[in-house]
Amino acid sequence: MTHPAQHTGRPGEQDAALLAPGWAASPAGAATSDTAYVRALLDAEAALTRAQAALGQAPAAAARAVTEAAAYPGRFDPAELAAQARAGGNPVIPLVGALTRAVPKAHAPYVHRGATSQDIMDTATMLVAARTLDPLLADLARTEEALARLAAAHRDTAMPGRTLTQHAVPTTFGLKAAGWRSLILDARDRVRAVRDTLPAQLGGAAGTLAAFTAYGAEDATALPAAYASELGLVAPLLPWHTLRTPIADLAGCLAFTAGALGKLAADVLVLARTEIAELAEGSGGGSSTMPHKANPVRATLLAAAARRAPGLAATLYGSLAAEDERPAGAWHAEWEPLRDLLRLTGGAARDAAELTEGLKVRADTMRRHLGLTHGLIVSERLSAALAPVLGRARAKELLTDAARRAWAEDRPLAAVLAEEPGVKDAVDLGDLTDPAHYTGSAGALTDRALERR
Amino acid sequence: MTHPAQHTGRPGEQDAALLAPGWAASPAGAATSDTAYVRALLDAEAALTRAQAALGQAPAAAARAVTEAAAYPGRFDPAELAAQARAGGNPVIPLVGALTRAVPKAHAPYVHRGATSQDIMDTATMLVAARTLDPLLADLARTEEALARLAAAHRDTAMPGRTLTQHAVPTTFGLKAAGWRSLILDARDRVRAVRDTLPAQLGGAAGTLAAFTAYGAEDATALPAAYASELGLVAPLLPWHTLRTPIADLAGCLAFTAGALGKLAADVLVLARTEIAELAEGSGGGSSTMPHKANPVRATLLAAAARRAPGLAATLYGSLAAEDERPAGAWHAEWEPLRDLLRLTGGAARDAAELTEGLKVRADTMRRHLGLTHGLIVSERLSAALAPVLGRARAKELLTDAARRAWAEDRPLAAVLAEEPGVKDAVDLGDLTDPAHYTGSAGALTDRALERR
Amino acid sequence: MTHPAQHTGRPGEQDAALLAPGWAASPAGAATSDTAYVRALLDAEAALTRAQAALGQAPAAAARAVTEAAAYPGRFDPAELAAQARAGGNPVIPLVGALTRAVPKAHAPYVHRGATSQDIMDTATMLVAARTLDPLLADLARTEEALARLAAAHRDTAMPGRTLTQHAVPTTFGLKAAGWRSLILDARDRVRAVRDTLPAQLGGAAGTLAAFTAYGAEDATALPAAYASELGLVAPLLPWHTLRTPIADLAGCLAFTAGALGKLAADVLVLARTEIAELAEGSGGGSSTMPHKANPVRATLLAAAARRAPGLAATLYGSLAAEDERPAGAWHAEWEPLRDLLRLTGGAARDAAELTEGLKVRADTMRRHLGLTHGLIVSERLSAALAPVLGRARAKELLTDAARRAWAEDRPLAAVLAEEPGVKDAVDLGDLTDPAHYTGSAGALTDRALERR
Amino acid sequence: MTHPAQHTGRPGEQDAALLAPGWAASPAGAATSDTAYVRALLDAEAALTRAQAALGQAPAAAARAVTEAAAYPGRFDPAELAAQARAGGNPVIPLVGALTRAVPKAHAPYVHRGATSQDIMDTATMLVAARTLDPLLADLARTEEALARLAAAHRDTAMPGRTLTQHAVPTTFGLKAAGWRSLILDARDRVRAVRDTLPAQLGGAAGTLAAFTAYGAEDATALPAAYASELGLVAPLLPWHTLRTPIADLAGCLAFTAGALGKLAADVLVLARTEIAELAEGSGGGSSTMPHKANPVRATLLAAAARRAPGLAATLYGSLAAEDERPAGAWHAEWEPLRDLLRLTGGAARDAAELTEGLKVRADTMRRHLGLTHGLIVSERLSAALAPVLGRARAKELLTDAARRAWAEDRPLAAVLAEEPGVKDAVDLGDLTDPAHYTGSAGALTDRALERR
Repeated sequence: MTHPAQHTGRPGEQDAALLAPGWAASPAGAATSDTAYVRALLDAEAALTRAQAALGQAPAAAARAVTEAAAYPGRFDPAELAAQARAGGNPVIPLVGALTRAVPKAHAPYVHRGATSQDIMDTATMLVAARTLDPLLADLARTEEALARLAAAHRDTAMPGRTLTQHAVPTTFGLKAAGWRSLILDARDRVRAVRDTLPAQLGGAAGTLAAFTAYGAEDATALPAAYASELGLVAPLLPWHTLRTPIADLAGCLAFTAGALGKLAADVLVLARTEIAELAEGSGGGSSTMPHKANPVRATLLAAAARRAPGLAATLYGSLAAEDERPAGAWHAEWEPLRDLLRLTGGAARDAAELTEGLKVRADTMRRHLGLTHGLIVSERLSAALAPVLGRARAKELLTDAARRAWAEDRPLAAVLAEEPGVKDAVDLGDLTDPAHYTGSAGALTDRALERR
Repeated sequence: MTHPAQHTGRPGEQDAALLAPGWAASPAGAATSDTAYVRALLDAEAALTRAQAALGQAPAAAARAVTEAAAYPGRFDPAELAAQARAGGNPVIPLVGALTRAVPKAHAPYVHRGATSQDIMDTATMLVAARTLDPLLADLARTEEALARLAAAHRDTAMPGRTLTQHAVPTTFGLKAAGWRSLILDARDRVRAVRDTLPAQLGGAAGTLAAFTAYGAEDATALPAAYASELGLVAPLLPWHTLRTPIADLAGCLAFTAGALGKLAADVLVLARTEIAELAEGSGGGSSTMPHKANPVRATLLAAAARRAPGLAATLYGSLAAEDERPAGAWHAEWEPLRDLLRLTGGAARDAAELTEGLKVRADTMRRHLGLTHGLIVSERLSAALAPVLGRARAKELLTDAARRAWAEDRPLAAVLAEEPGVKDAVDLGDLTDPAHYTGSAGALTDRALERR
Repeated sequence: MTHPAQHTGRPGEQDAALLAPGWAASPAGAATSDTAYVRALLDAEAALTRAQAALGQAPAAAARAVTEAAAYPGRFDPAELAAQARAGGNPVIPLVGALTRAVPKAHAPYVHRGATSQDIMDTATMLVAARTLDPLLADLARTEEALARLAAAHRDTAMPGRTLTQHAVPTTFGLKAAGWRSLILDARDRVRAVRDTLPAQLGGAAGTLAAFTAYGAEDATALPAAYASELGLVAPLLPWHTLRTPIADLAGCLAFTAGALGKLAADVLVLARTEIAELAEGSGGGSSTMPHKANPVRATLLAAAARRAPGLAATLYGSLAAEDERPAGAWHAEWEPLRDLLRLTGGAARDAAELTEGLKVRADTMRRHLGLTHGLIVSERLSAALAPVLGRARAKELLTDAARRAWAEDRPLAAVLAEEPGVKDAVDLGDLTDPAHYTGSAGALTDRALERR
Repeated sequence: MTHPAQHTGRPGEQDAALLAPGWAASPAGAATSDTAYVRALLDAEAALTRAQAALGQAPAAAARAVTEAAAYPGRFDPAELAAQARAGGNPVIPLVGALTRAVPKAHAPYVHRGATSQDIMDTATMLVAARTLDPLLADLARTEEALARLAAAHRDTAMPGRTLTQHAVPTTFGLKAAGWRSLILDARDRVRAVRDTLPAQLGGAAGTLAAFTAYGAEDATALPAAYASELGLVAPLLPWHTLRTPIADLAGCLAFTAGALGKLAADVLVLARTEIAELAEGSGGGSSTMPHKANPVRATLLAAAARRAPGLAATLYGSLAAEDERPAGAWHAEWEPLRDLLRLTGGAARDAAELTEGLKVRADTMRRHLGLTHGLIVSERLSAALAPVLGRARAKELLTDAARRAWAEDRPLAAVLAEEPGVKDAVDLGDLTDPAHYTGSAGALTDRALERR
């Protein structure tokens, strides 16, 4: 059906991402392609033989031979492997066959010796995860830096605080950006912790390492560490064929990251609305038929990722319930969802970096919107200020009435209140009713949040 | 599956299914590839111009020209389109550009005229769904027929009924197979109902069909029906850009189907266990290192699909909550999950057909297992039979005691009971304690279930 | 922890819904309380004995006695039953014990005779579903009618069509309301179809009806129909202990309904924003500290329901994969999620009725917003109209330039275009640039949609 | 529907758990009841006034008065609050009203002063979480200890390793139990980390702390720390009204825990099957009609929890995407799912402790099952051992043939091989074919795993 030869040297061709503008042409897309998986599977096989050689369980020449054969993923056609994988239910079985054929006959016995398919598949998955999380972390770092700049620049840019879609009291864009950054740092911390503990997998058929001993290892328990070391992964305490902590941890940190970016996107989408327009993406997606449209495309794709990540993570958490020493379904159900979650979140991190680096902030529009409620956005403050002056009951009554009138007569609350006897003289209405003067501790909170590294 | 020549020298590159033995090399895989989507998008574009021509809103020559240009999906590289889709957030925008360039200049204005990207994307998605559901339904039909044969053949094959993992009372394999078939028929009915109502999408920028009138249509509301007719889809009552019933209906019927197949798989996996071995797959997946293993690979992949489908469907149901005339994220979040669900379930249907057609039933093992509880599997029946003879209290006491002894002494319950004075003469112990004689209405229920077509 | 004595005779105490303003004090809440479940379980038990009596398998006096004992759910304390349910894993076991004790000794043997816990639990669940879906359908009907009125009243109320958060082209509020109604009708159709097919459950220990025969039924297969008839449920073709179509169908129609209401809510939440204010809830939730706030509380709770329903439905779809004749977990995992989905969606239907019946539509604000883009909202129309006059290339160039200037100079597009030589005379700019004149087929589509009943 | 008067003073009535044998009568059930939430809400209110008093922002007498009024949760009826919560969409609004009325008039202004409903709701949620996680951690500790004992006791108890439902190679029950324990420790570490960082929430209407300053605080940023300190919670870096890290972290650690327990349950359910019976629950659920049944009820309920947790966690991860300073739906969608996840997982931890403490291990049955494949369970080892003796090709051929014959002739592989010339003398067949001698590093791995604390 396919022609392997034609694939050689064209990495990244698979998974063309036609339906996935969120991760198309992204580092995460490249790091999770079928080609990238083949490469990781081959890396895992080669490392296994090398680790055995390092411990005297295989000839050094065999390790060299396997490593060399594994160095050309282009030889192994993903589509062909996929079709062959149907028989046994995983792609390692045909890949081991093909790799064995690619190794000089004398060294062939040392290919995959003592391992089970899952050792290789899981290890390759961890390699792919590592290779995806690294650029993802870099994109989170770009995002965090862009947000730090925005928060500092707009420390005192007042804007309406909105709750349940309505103006509540003022806040600042600095505090908002600092909050987004805080979530990004939370995501970074969670991803980094997982990245730093991605384990190699090695257990043999049922996780006892028995075959390695059968093939001559004196102490087979030394092998997993040597194997992990070859690959830059962490040595596992136990084979984790059905102890899926690493998969669940990936699910958790990726769902968190996608959600954190989804919060950023949700705010941008609100604030970029035609009627609000307090924010705009640097390069909004255009429309050929509607030249005035500047669609918040990056935020849209982030929002889409945030909608999808929880369902994928749920499937992965569900796979924790894996019976026996290798389950009939739970393991197989992890492969595509984990890849999807990696590339989706990785692509989202890239989009978040672009979005935040290019974000246009319209401070004047924010300021203007503070007046949309005729000053009622500071009614909470007026309650607090007038109660000691007028008595609590009278203050409340007066404010309720003034608010009603300001709204009905389309006038500023300050003007209505100024007509009330005794108010104007008792308090500084100009100050009290200026929304930009009622941002509370927003500045101090922003400063504090920016101290976090 | 694909036509290499049409891809500019890069055959089979997309969606190689390395991680998806469940749908690799399946009709569903082929019908949902990037290439298949490009074809469907082009079909949708060509049909639009043809429908306009049919209603006198475009020259017939333009319709022919667009149809001709759209006939060669190989001209349009999914990877390239995917990368270009990043700017505007969907692949239709660059595809329209490319298609327009592929059409003689005079006819170019009639490409995509009056439509919005979502019209084409949604319509193409319905085409892809139709093209996936057809073979899926065929595979369900194969499965249903195989199960009907099994149910009829094993109408009276007694086996242990199991509840909460324990033997309860006897049942028959016929009833079990008839139950599986019943679920398959339920799935078929639900899929078919959705298949028969897949609608075309046409509304223009905000679903008012305004642009078509602007371009000269007298009655733009006639266009969607003409368009649907060109494509073999159903004419929508309203544009459904944010009325996502068709997507939710697909989610529901596919999640149901995957779950129905998951039930079949769950049973096969239990009954194929080494200790149980009442069933075996026709061609179990082998293991190079463990020749005795005959893994139930088809059931394993079905089980994996059943674990994944609910999460995908959840995302699609979630996308019903789509704001405005085109949402910023909810729509984009549908594309990959719907495709995944189509191919996953389509692949599962293929596996189910292979599984059921090849299933090996070991009636003798089933029969033997009926004795595993020393006859206690019929204790329910003995309660009912002895109560009228001995009085309810005495019968219960006696049975509890006999059960305890049969278990403790590792003897058949019938033998223990035969020693009890008065029992042997009062009832036909041989008949009463024969599990194969206690299958109730299993046969009649099987017959009734098989009458359903 | 609990004090049974204090519970006697006080229905409605459980499930106080403190965390659930969405279904608190709703018909769905009442219909799904623990008390309601106890009542349904008792109804199921009583119907079973009556059905057996009707077929001559139990004395009529026993049927009367069980029915009478079951008529007082207040006797059976949910908290006590819940605690006792821990031993066997379901509440039917202790309930049968309690009911048996409440029946005169002579009739006690006819309580639950031949049935398994799941027969009663599943049947009760269907009763609860029926009792929840009836008021839910009534609330959908109210909602549908309110929306029909809104759509008719605002058939020609122009407003901005919004895509990806940006103004695209005009639409009408009538079409929007008609679209919402269309989704509600889709939900109604799906719920009604499921409501009309809710089946009773009766199979005995392993679904073979064997015990009923053991207890003397000549043709046990007649019993399920008689049983269903007693309860107003549908007779099942087969016992469905592990053929969970009814549960999955409920999951699907409820997730659909919650999502359909979520679409309505998503739009209301956008259009009720302080800056947009084209819609307002009739009685928005107030804030003691912020008198100007009129929170769209009903829409908020609908949105929350729409976020939760997919996850609950996913769990229920997942339970289709239920092994054996009664599964160890899949069945138990259905109970709370199905109840949650019923009450959540039922409560949402009530909120939707209140929301739509009280919705305030501000047509003038809608009209005013059509001007927010300086007329660019009709640029699509101008493209179509000017191309024949000026030539396609020239028209495009001119429009792009005019759009840029209108935006930059904060002037209406019509004014800018009027200065272009040749434009003013060639077309009727006043008509062409009036957004309210560019609603396409919105009116006709609204009419057509309202014909659907 | 409800009768408030009847509720006064009867805490613990709500949430009777009729459908939830998994958490009925559990510490988690008690800690998450409506009554427990009311208590936590009141604790939060009282702590707020106390914290203000501590910083000189409220009179000490007011703090005492509020604390005293809040000390009797029984005064506040959850059902009444729930019904009143409908208006504003959350239960804090009516609770504040009721609490204010319960405080002497002079102190009433200091109730809830400066706070927003979400401050109290979120803080109460963290209190409830803390109060649920503490007993949950205690139950995980019990479980871990029971598993440590089992692993040590069965360090060398050989049993079949099973992959894809088939016997693969031997393993030990010690390694299996050590693996379960390892997952429990992973869960404990994740839960504990979250438990130790549960933050108080305090931000005021839009998270700027502005109202506290308006009411006279010199440095409002000192208040959250004082508040947290009153409650034994952690002081937040920023108000987290829409930075939902604490909720997502809870979702993650709870879904993980439920899944880890689900792995344990999955294995127990397999090994407790009638045909396998290598394990049994200490007190299996009985069946009145089937005395021989000892249902693995605890494992069943664990399995049910593991099926439900991912969907609940998905909803919570989805709520990260929360727009504005308080979202219209995402926040409200958290309340019930988080409670459900807490009680479900807490109940599961209790069941796991009971399950593991009572687990019956049948080492002899395990040993016997090693013979079920006629010795083929050690074929991997024979391959390795015979290759150097006979040459790799010859060894493979001979083994394949011997395996086929052992299977077909129903004889031990050792006996078949002993007939092959040259084999018997070359290797120690007795040792090589004894499955209990082929457990590899299972013992060493168990020892290593048990060193982890």
